[in-house]
Order: sequence, then C-alpha cells, then structure tokens
Amino acid sequence: MNFASDNVWGAAPEMIEALRAANSGAAPSYGEDALTARLATVMDHLFERRVAAFPVISGTAANALALATIVPLQGAVFCHAAAHIVTDECGAPEFFTHGAKVVPLDGPEGKIGVRILEAAINRFVKGSVHHPQPAAVSITQATECGTCYEPPAIAAIADLAHRNGMRLHMDGSRLANAIAHLSCTPAEATWKAGVDVLSFGATKNCALGAESVVFFNPPDADDFEFRRKKAGHLLSKMRFMSAQLLCALEQDRWLAWASRANALARRLAEELEKLPSVEIGYPVEANSVFVFLPNATVARLRGRGAQFYDWGEPDNERTLVRLVTSHGTPESDIEQFLAAARP
Amino acid sequence: MNFASDNVWGAAPEMIEALRAANSGAAPSYGEDALTARLATVMDHLFERRVAAFPVISGTAANALALATIVPLQGAVFCHAAAHIVTDECGAPEFFTHGAKVVPLDGPEGKIGVRILEAAINRFVKGSVHHPQPAAVSITQATECGTCYEPPAIAAIADLAHRNGMRLHMDGSRLANAIAHLSCTPAEATWKAGVDVLSFGATKNCALGAESVVFFNPPDADDFEFRRKKAGHLLSKMRFMSAQLLCALEQDRWLAWASRANALARRLAEELEKLPSVEIGYPVEANSVFVFLPNATVARLRGRGAQFYDWGEPDNERTLVRLVTSHGTPESDIEQFLAAARP
Amino acid sequence: MNFASDNVWGAAPEMIEALRAANSGAAPSYGEDALTARLATVMDHLFERRVAAFPVISGTAANALALATIVPLQGAVFCHAAAHIVTDECGAPEFFTHGAKVVPLDGPEGKIGVRILEAAINRFVKGSVHHPQPAAVSITQATECGTCYEPPAIAAIADLAHRNGMRLHMDGSRLANAIAHLSCTPAEATWKAGVDVLSFGATKNCALGAESVVFFNPPDADDFEFRRKKAGHLLSKMRFMSAQLLCALEQDRWLAWASRANALARRLAEELEKLPSVEIGYPVEANSVFVFLPNATVARLRGRGAQFYDWGEPDNERTLVRLVTSHGTPESDIEQFLAAARP
Amino acid sequence: MNFASDNVWGAAPEMIEALRAANSGAAPSYGEDALTARLATVMDHLFERRVAAFPVISGTAANALALATIVPLQGAVFCHAAAHIVTDECGAPEFFTHGAKVVPLDGPEGKIGVRILEAAINRFVKGSVHHPQPAAVSITQATECGTCYEPPAIAAIADLAHRNGMRLHMDGSRLANAIAHLSCTPAEATWKAGVDVLSFGATKNCALGAESVVFFNPPDADDFEFRRKKAGHLLSKMRFMSAQLLCALEQDRWLAWASRANALARRLAEELEKLPSVEIGYPVEANSVFVFLPNATVARLRGRGAQFYDWGEPDNERTLVRLVTSHGTPESDIEQFLAAARP
Repeated sequence: MNFASDNVWGAAPEMIEALRAANSGAAPSYGEDALTARLATVMDHLFERRVAAFPVISGTAANALALATIVPLQGAVFCHAAAHIVTDECGAPEFFTHGAKVVPLDGPEGKIGVRILEAAINRFVKGSVHHPQPAAVSITQATECGTCYEPPAIAAIADLAHRNGMRLHMDGSRLANAIAHLSCTPAEATWKAGVDVLSFGATKNCALGAESVVFFNPPDADDFEFRRKKAGHLLSKMRFMSAQLLCALEQDRWLAWASRANALARRLAEELEKLPSVEIGYPVEANSVFVFLPNATVARLRGRGAQFYDWGEPDNERTLVRLVTSHGTPESDIEQFLAAARP
Repeated sequence: MNFASDNVWGAAPEMIEALRAANSGAAPSYGEDALTARLATVMDHLFERRVAAFPVISGTAANALALATIVPLQGAVFCHAAAHIVTDECGAPEFFTHGAKVVPLDGPEGKIGVRILEAAINRFVKGSVHHPQPAAVSITQATECGTCYEPPAIAAIADLAHRNGMRLHMDGSRLANAIAHLSCTPAEATWKAGVDVLSFGATKNCALGAESVVFFNPPDADDFEFRRKKAGHLLSKMRFMSAQLLCALEQDRWLAWASRANALARRLAEELEKLPSVEIGYPVEANSVFVFLPNATVARLRGRGAQFYDWGEPDNERTLVRLVTSHGTPESDIEQFLAAARP
Repeated sequence: MNFASDNVWGAAPEMIEALRAANSGAAPSYGEDALTARLATVMDHLFERRVAAFPVISGTAANALALATIVPLQGAVFCHAAAHIVTDECGAPEFFTHGAKVVPLDGPEGKIGVRILEAAINRFVKGSVHHPQPAAVSITQATECGTCYEPPAIAAIADLAHRNGMRLHMDGSRLANAIAHLSCTPAEATWKAGVDVLSFGATKNCALGAESVVFFNPPDADDFEFRRKKAGHLLSKMRFMSAQLLCALEQDRWLAWASRANALARRLAEELEKLPSVEIGYPVEANSVFVFLPNATVARLRGRGAQFYDWGEPDNERTLVRLVTSHGTPESDIEQFLAAARP
Repeated sequence: MNFASDNVWGAAPEMIEALRAANSGAAPSYGEDALTARLATVMDHLFERRVAAFPVISGTAANALALATIVPLQGAVFCHAAAHIVTDECGAPEFFTHGAKVVPLDGPEGKIGVRILEAAINRFVKGSVHHPQPAAVSITQATECGTCYEPPAIAAIADLAHRNGMRLHMDGSRLANAIAHLSCTPAEATWKAGVDVLSFGATKNCALGAESVVFFNPPDADDFEFRRKKAGHLLSKMRFMSAQLLCALEQDRWLAWASRANALARRLAEELEKLPSVEIGYPVEANSVFVFLPNATVARLRGRGAQFYDWGEPDNERTLVRLVTSHGTPESDIEQFLAAARP
C-alpha cells in the first residue's frame, strides 16, 4: 500500500517491451537516431503544430533547462509557493539560470490567481537594474494540490504574462492526469491557452525515466541543445529515452494510464469522505488525494503498512495527508487501504 | 558496419532483462530503494574498500559533477588535450565548477606524462589570487587514443598531484576495456594507484545509460548529492539505473563484454596492418583502433556502408581513422569490414 | 533638499585629503601596500580581535562575496523581506553563490524575529537533497526601516543560527549609524553578539566608495580573496580604497559623521511629528525617517525641490515617505524642508 | 626605482583635483548624475560615433563583463596565450560567462595571427553541441609584450571573426599607450578596424581606479547594466569614477600621460641596448621594456633597490625582465636604473 508518490511505482510493462524493441542493432547516438526523429513527428502531431521538443531524463532537469532557456540571469520567475521548482529542486532553477529570482506566490488549491500575480509582477520595477526583471510565470498542471487549471484560467495568466513581456512555462510532470481530467486536447491545454514552453512528464506516468521539454515557438529553443549538453543531459543512447516517450504517446497510452490513476484517486476520495471525521482537502481532479484523517486512522493505516506523506504538521485531532495513485497501483491496495481506514 | 563509437550499439539483452526484473511493485524513489542499496555493497566489494558511489545518467554528468565536487571555482584541472572533458563536453566542467580552468596538455598516445604535467602545474603560482590554483588532474582510462595507462604510470601522476595538494580524477567511461587489457583488479587500476575519484562508465559497455561517480575517500563526496540534485541528475526511479550497473557488475559481465570488444578491436588491427600502406596509429589496447588507411580504402569502405570517423584531416595519401568496437558489434561486421578493406 | 539616500551626498573633505596623502610615490599593487597593511591593524584594533578584513568597492559586492564565502550552492539564506540583498541587488547573492536560495521573512520595523526565523528554518528538511539547506542568516544593521537591533536581539538570532549550524551575516552598510545610536562598541555590536561576517560600510558614510568584508573567524575567509579576484573586485591601486577606510576609522570620524547624520534625522522627525496629520512610521534610530505625510504636503515639498522616495503606494490621504540624512546634508536643507512641510 | 608595473604608481595630481571638484553637493546616485552624463557625451565624441560606454572599477571586471555580454555559455573566446584574461584574472571570464571556453593561442610578440586563429576556430565544429562555439576573439592593445597591433592587423582579425559570426573584443587596459604610439585616432584604433567592444583602461594610466566598457554597437550592450549590477560593479557614487575618466579624456591628458610613459620606456630601451650582453626582447612600442640582462646586472639592480619582474625562468647567463614605466615614473628613477645597469 504505497501512496507516497506516483514515482514509487515502476514502469508499465509496455515500456520494458518498447526498450527491448528499441534495442536492435546500431543507431546513431546523441539523438540522431530514427526513434528520436519519429518522436519529433509524433510530438508535432500530438500538439497539432510544429514544436521543438527535447527529451531529458528528469523533471528537475526539464524545468531548470526550460526556465534557463527563457529567463536571463537578471530575470524573475513567478510561481506558486508549493511549486516543485521552489520546494523540491534544491535551487536548480537558480543554478541553471545563473541566479534568476524565483518568486513564490500564495493561492488557493495550488493555483496562482491573476490578481496576486499581477501585484507581484508590479512590485518589480521594469528596467531598474536594481531589481530582477519579470521574465516568466511557471504554473504546475496538475498542481501540487492535485487540482487542475481550466484552460481559460491558463489563458488569463498567459495573457497577463505576455502583456508584461514574459513567457509562460508549464511544469507538466502530471500533465497526463490533468488532460485526462479536463477532456481537452493537449493543444488546448497548452499553447492554445498561451503556454510557451512545457515540461512534459512521462516518468510519473509509467516510464522508467523520460520527460520532454516542448517549446511551442521553436525559435525560443535557440540554445537549448547547448544547455542540455553542457548540463550533462544529452544522452548518447537517446533512443531508449525516445522509445519510452513514443511508447507513452502511441495508442494514447499516456492518457489511458493517467485516467486509471485518476480513477483510483477518485475512488479513494469518494470512499474516504463517507467516513466520519474525514474531510477532503482539495478537489480531487488528478491522481492525488489530500485528505484530513483522524490521527488514530493515520496511525492505524501506517501500522498496517500504508505509506504516504503528511502534508504539513498534524493538529491534535487530525492530519492532512497526501495519497498519490498511479496506473501501477493495484486495486487491491485501494481496497486494503479503505478497509484499514474504516473505523 | 558501424564503428563510429561504442555508444551506437544498444544494450546487452541481459540489461533489458535486468530492467524487467527491477520493474516489480513499489519501491522508494530517489535512490532509497533496495537495488541501489545493493549496488552500494557491490561497489564496495568490487573496489575492496568502502566507497561513496553515485549513479548518474551520462559520462559528461559524471565527469562534471565529480570535478565540481573536488575543484573549487578558483581551481585548475589538468588533462590531456584530447580528453573528453576538454573536447566533447561543451564546457560542462567549467559550468559545473563555476569557472575553474581546464588546462589541456599534450602527450603521446593520449597520455599525459609526469614531466609535462609538472611543468604545467608549476606555471600556476601557488597562493596567488591572480592565477587559478592547481586542484585536480584528470586522466582518461582507456585513453581517447585507445591506449591504457599502466598502474605505475597512474601512480606517478597521482604522486605528483598529491604532493601538490591536488586530487586525481579518472574518466573511466571505458575503464572496463582498460581493466580487461591490464589484467589487474579494479582496486589496482584505481585507488591503489592513487585515483581519488572515478567516473565509472557502463553506458559505452552495454548499458542503456548508467555511470557511477565513485569517491574512494567517502568524505570527499561531501556535497555531491546536493550537486547531483541541483543539476537535475537525481532520478526518481533510480532503481532502473542501479539495476543496469548491477547487471554489469554481477558475474563480471562488464569485463566479459569489454574483453570481447577489445578482442574485436585487436582482430581488426591485426588484419588491417597486414595490408599494404596501412599503419596502426596507436597501440591497440582497448576497443578502439586508430589506423592510417589509404584514402582510396577509406572511400571504398564508406561506399560499402562502413561508418567511422576520420581523426584529423587526411593528407594526400592517407587518413587516420578511428574504429570503435563494442560487445554489440557482430563478428560479421568485422569480417565484412576487413573484406572491404582489402585491396 | 536631497533626502533620497545617503549616497547622493559626496565624500567628506577629509576623504579627498586622504586620497591626496595616499597618492605619493610607488606602492605595491593589489593590496600589498602599506596603507592596506595598516588598515588590517586598525581593523583588528577596532574589533578588539584578529579579523580577516577585505576592502571592496560596493555594498552589493560586499554582501554577495561575504555570502558566497559562507553559503554553499545548496544553501539557503534567511533575511528580512526588505533586506537590500533581496530587494536591491538584482539577484547578486544568487549569482555569486551559484544559486543558493534567499528566503525573505516578514517582521516588524525591518527586523526578523527569532520565532518567525525558527519556523522558516524548520520548513527546510535538514539533509534532504531536495531542499536548500539552511546556511546563513543575514540581518541589516541599521535596518532598511531605520531601526537598530539591540545586541541581545542579535545574540538571540545568532544563537538560533549557530544551533542550526548556520552563520550570521550582518549587512552593515549603515553600521556606523547603528553604533552611534546604540552607544556600544563595534565588538559588542558584532562578534560579541554572535555575528560571523560583516559587510562594513563606509560609502554611505562619507567615503567615495569603500566597504570592507570582515570575517571575525579568519579561517572562514578561506577562499575569499580568490572569489574577490575572480569577480573583478580586487583593485590594483588598493591603497586608495584602504585610505578611505583609514580616514573613516581614524579619530573615530566614522562615528562622528554618523552621529551627525542621526541627529539630523532625529531633528527632522521631532519637528515633523509636531505637525498635524503627520505620523512617524518607525522609531528613528539611525539616519532614516519614515513618516506618513499628507499628500498635499508631499506635493508641496516636491514642488519646492525636495527629493525623497515614497515607501509603498500612497492612500487617499497620506503617503509614507523615506527621508535619509547624511553628514553631508546641510542644516539649511533640514530647515527649508521643515519650513516647506509646515502647513 | 619601481618598474614592476604601471599600476604601482599613484594617480596624476589632476585626478585628485577632479575628485575634489566632483565632490560638491548632492547628485543622483548609480550613474544618474551630471558627470556620468557628460562622460557619455565625451565618449561619443572621442570615438566619433554613438557608443554605449559604462564605467567599471577594474580591468578584470571590464573584460569579464564585456565578454559575458557577447559570449553565451556555450561560447569560445580566442586570445593570445599571454593575455591577461587567460593568465591573470583567476578565471573571471569563465565565471562571468558561466563556463565559456577561453582558448589560448601562441603568436610572436604577444600578438595573435590570422592563420593560427583561423586554424583554432576551425577546430570547433560549428553547430555541434559537443563543442564550444566560437563566439569572440579578444586582443590586447598594447599587448602583454609591450607591442602594438597596427590597425590593418586588427582589421584582418576582425574580418576573420566577423566572417565566422564572432565578435572582436579589445582589452585596452593600455590603449592609451598604443594610440600614443600608433598616432591614429581612437576610432581608427578600434571600431574602424572592426573592434566591437573595448575595455578602455584609465587605471594604469594615472587614474585611481576607472575603466570603461565601450560597445561600439550600442544594442550589443543589451543586458550589460544588469550584469554590472548583479556582479556588484554598479557604484552608488558613480560620479567619482566618471570624474576620473573625464579628467583623463579632457584636454587629451590620457594621451599626454601615455606618451610620456612610452618615452621613458624608449629611453630605457635605447640606453640599455647599448650595454654589452644586453638584448631587447620585443619592439618597445608602448610603456614596457622586455630586455635580456646579464644575471649579474639583474642582481646588482635589485641590490640597489630596483623593482621589476623576471619574465620566465633565467638561464645560466641572462634573464628576460620586464620594466614598466608610467607617467608617474620619475626621470631620476630612469637615470638611477641606467647607472646601476652599466657595468
């Protein structure tokens, strides 16, 4: 019963099969291979436009390289205070950008709102060399609270960013879960809503390790490939990373996998909130359930082997915990968890 | 007939099998899993001492992170002019070290000699803030010329480095090939000869993508894990990288694979040098053959589909080419190549 | 009537005289000169202990170099949200530290309190590679609100920092004004209260351009001189910067100058708060007056040529403005300003 | 008798007078003052075109900031092996550019020749992410050997650089000495010969500390001001640095001072080469004399208090020494030196 994260689960069996299939004969290294070329075409098709998309091995690398490409060293990046780039990457964005400022903003349900964002942007004096210059907004989709931005909300942020000469980055390590929830197209969820560059995640969604940085305006990608190489993120046997991304995208597996993860999360939430003294913390729109459980329940669950994180400090009576599901999560784990949760 | 590099070949089938075996159930992420723990034990055993070893995805990352950990921003790193860190990493060491100086040195057969090294070190005034301070020597084993340092040669460099307060780094992206040639133990090839930190390569030797940075004096590793994370090189599903390294090390597969690659190179060299107007460029001690071929032969080989790199500019009569073999190279490719090379 | 900042005023005439006196004959460059040696002795005497003190040209350089010396790239620095390092240095600390995190904290009167600081520190998980690691606290003395930390308040912060393995940095660009107010010794205001490294400012206090980074535990200064050089901050004709610092320190001129600036600020405040609808914003303890003035008064003052900054957005009735005095401020400017402020 | 460097001498008395004159009343800080504005006009006039010129405090800062502005992190900068940026700045260019490669080239008399430069540029594969990308050439005028590039030689380098999409930087810490020798205009010595950005030095030529980074194509300066601020090189009391540069440029003092320094060097050289066993090392075109002296002479000179540097290791009979003159050098020092040199 491991609900600690979606990355505790391994890869879909199809992924291993894709690696086996990719492992045949010689192929040019460093991304000059046929699978990587095919991936480029598939990405264009997926997003209904020509994109510049580059595989990288981790979400932190995807975010940091994406931001460094669009944010100069004097830039400022605005994001939610709970964003992975601010809480979980050990300052990778600051390192890759040579010291740009990451500005955390509060906002309900893991989302940043246009009003708070605008106020924050306005605190930086445009053109003053004393102040970092607003350069990008980074939103997380699905959010760190398991909620999803609707495309119009993204468009409002994008519009504000663009009016200020800034770019919009989306950390989409769980974009599949968001799109499975939103029932919109990948294009609608991203560039049609104004996203300029996307960290497209597959690792949390059944890959072994594969992400892609997608620039919707290819000239923006300018020096990306140099940055990727210089950071040690250009893989010689690229075909194996491309094979994973292709495996996910072909036959829309990525959405099927994410849908199943979302459904498991919804089931958890629906059953848990029937219990006394249990309260769901945020709308369950992706594959995370944030739920207040009585402290006794938390202890009992852990006693029976359930793994999950507390989200903040418990109070005297209850604890907000985070439960993350994956396509890999066995149904039986859900049922065991629910059984153990019942008083 | 692809002799462009050893990284054009895929992975050993055992590697795919290892990934499949690793892909079972949930496991803690970010290296807290059982396979990564086992890898640590195997590494200690391999090197006959406690080491601090950290998987990373690429050789460039391994080198740059290793060097950044032992070289301060005012440091200088001495290496051969043909070293990968100076010719093929787009300045990654400078980026990761925040501007340390990489000092290329000449030397026959891809090796740096103690005399040239000492002269180079002495050109930097110790303690002067105007000059980068000698901090590390980096040697490549096997070298970029397909030769190998004998342990006493390494010890002489290590001794010089240590007397100057410097550390010795070994870029061992082809260490397996060197050890297969030297018939010494991994310990003898590294720390017993004075190596302080090693980039241990598996990617070029049948992995999909897996290297390890090995600190023989664990306290040196101090902030390595923070650097790895901050550079986006900490993988969430680490078990899959650890599984590859374990697959290579268990049953000494890494040495068997490297031995076979070396044997193929030797066969190529032995047959080629029987041909008229052909001259071997460097002793063939690992899995690379540097050979002067008549320009007509080069053209004929390429016409028949052989892939390989020229090494420097051709003259009017002949070209120095590099042929790299791998465990993956089919014997039939060797025979076809030799047949095409014969006048 | 220029109250925009203390750096709008020039240098004390004694400073020009000191430069003239220093300008005689040849002297070794890069800080090997006699004046710089004398300055070292004077600094030791000033602080009643052996210190490692290094002249630099600007406050931003002093802060960024000081922090980079004590904060590793994975570190986090905690400071007040109004601190110069976070609001006015265009991300210099992040650049010099290679991406350490600067964490702004709220607190009344420009000061950080122990409770908020402790809570902030505790949000970073010690030893977790995902999180920046608490490495330093930076306090500003006098604060950006013109207030001063009493030594016991500094000691409480230092104690908390040290218990967490962190260092305490003091941005003392206006330390003279603080000491003039506190009537304590420089030692009591700094290392005796637990400060580990100090940016000692002279520029705002009658120098042309001269600061000093003072390490109270000299081994901490370790690689400082290399960092200063590598950042282009080692001056060849160092004697001219040292001469300014000596000029300030000799005969306690720095305290006399700061006392006069403080007295002018107090006079401004005392007279202004007698006026109707005027309210002093923060205790006037150094050379800055934060005062709410009726908007009509603000307009009238500016109409008569007074220069000063608004501090935040005005409301319908009044504006919080900042008035900074200097030893250079003519008494007549004070009187004219007060005359114009009176209804 | 101090011939160690031109920076061992102080400032011209006019410089102190200029500081006194600048020290009157309040002035806007951070370069918004009238003197800095006037300097901009004077610079435009000096170079016969609109330039973007920015005062900075040191030559290392000027070079590093100039290069960082025109060289991306994947770039390579080509310069002479004796260039200050490679030998004397502790890796500042690598730090400011985030790891660009500085490539030292050999060449007689401290100059780089077009043929060697072209060969070096061609060794970097254009567009390959594995290789740093040629981005700039940096030449030193006058050179580190006390020689000067004639404008046509500069134009040949500039032409090669521009054909390769690179920029030409000139380290002009001794540009005054070169122009005094060349009898050409500042425009002819720089942009008319193809220089794109210039480190214009005044410190070695009678200032206390003042350089200027001059972009001949102002849009190139783009983010320069942010970089200067972020590196702690924006001075609050900028007027005092601008006053020094104005002092030098007005009434062509900079050229008069440099001419006198050059004349002293020529006199030294002319007299020394009359002596037995003495040989001049490089043409004496600026204010440095490189001369082979018998070891006994060197010892005798030092015994009588002469200060100068050996240039490389002495052999059994003689030593190459460097003698640098300045406008500040007393004639009597020249005569005493010559007297002591005579056998």
